[in-house]
Amino acid sequence: MEKFDIDKVKFDEKGLIAAIAQDEKSGNILMIAWMNREALEKTLALRKAHYWSRSRNKLWFKGEESGNVQEVKNIYIDCDMDAVVMKVNQIGGAACHTGFDTCFFREIKEDGTITGCGEKVFNPEDVYGKK
Amino acid sequence: MEKFDIDKVKFDEKGLIAAIAQDEKSGNILMIAWMNREALEKTLALRKAHYWSRSRNKLWFKGEESGNVQEVKNIYIDCDMDAVVMKVNQIGGAACHTGFDTCFFREIKEDGTITGCGEKVFNPEDVYGKK
Repeated sequence: MEKFDIDKVKFDEKGLIAAIAQDEKSGNILMIAWMNREALEKTLALRKAHYWSRSRNKLWFKGEESGNVQEVKNIYIDCDMDAVVMKVNQIGGAACHTGFDTCFFREIKEDGTITGCGEKVFNPEDVYGKK
Repeated sequence: MEKFDIDKVKFDEKGLIAAIAQDEKSGNILMIAWMNREALEKTLALRKAHYWSRSRNKLWFKGEESGNVQEVKNIYIDCDMDAVVMKVNQIGGAACHTGFDTCFFREIKEDGTITGCGEKVFNPEDVYGKK
């Protein structure tokens, strides 16, 4: 059995890798975000998704504010060692801060239009307060 | 019907967005790569996945060399307008240059080990030649 060595992960020049969350039941891709080494370590240790917020420039425990934690059931790393996929149980049923189940709630159709296709699970104002 | 406006896509400081390919049938996440504006335009126009190769610094028509083209069945864009998910028909059954069906062919287990979990579809030497 080979031990996973976090020193082999290829964090980029900003110290980040891409992290994709996939709903374990539906298989829907919920979101993509970024992890630094600490976020990956915490995710692996606690089996709850942690990211690095590039906009807030800090460690981001997903669901800390909304309660919509992502329980990590499986985590996979890619051939280049610079991206991970997590199969998660999305508490609350919604990954997106807009209240949709997935951040990928709009489809670009062949006719050049863009149309909503996600499911609105919550009203962001109820969860995060009016901003 | 709202028209998709590529000018609203938030390409990063390198002119790139993240692009995730998902197998339309199995739901498996096959790979993550990057698109610049031209790659996204070509993908939308031709319904075949095009990426920007960061290592080769050029437009990359996936499958150009191996024949393992990705036929794009659906394409979704995220809330931040900086990532897309494509549901694809992966010709040849393998997305990864290592010959595995998916680039995410290794799982990091809870016990701290890393184990193969993908399916080897082809021998890279047969497809790309010995290097």
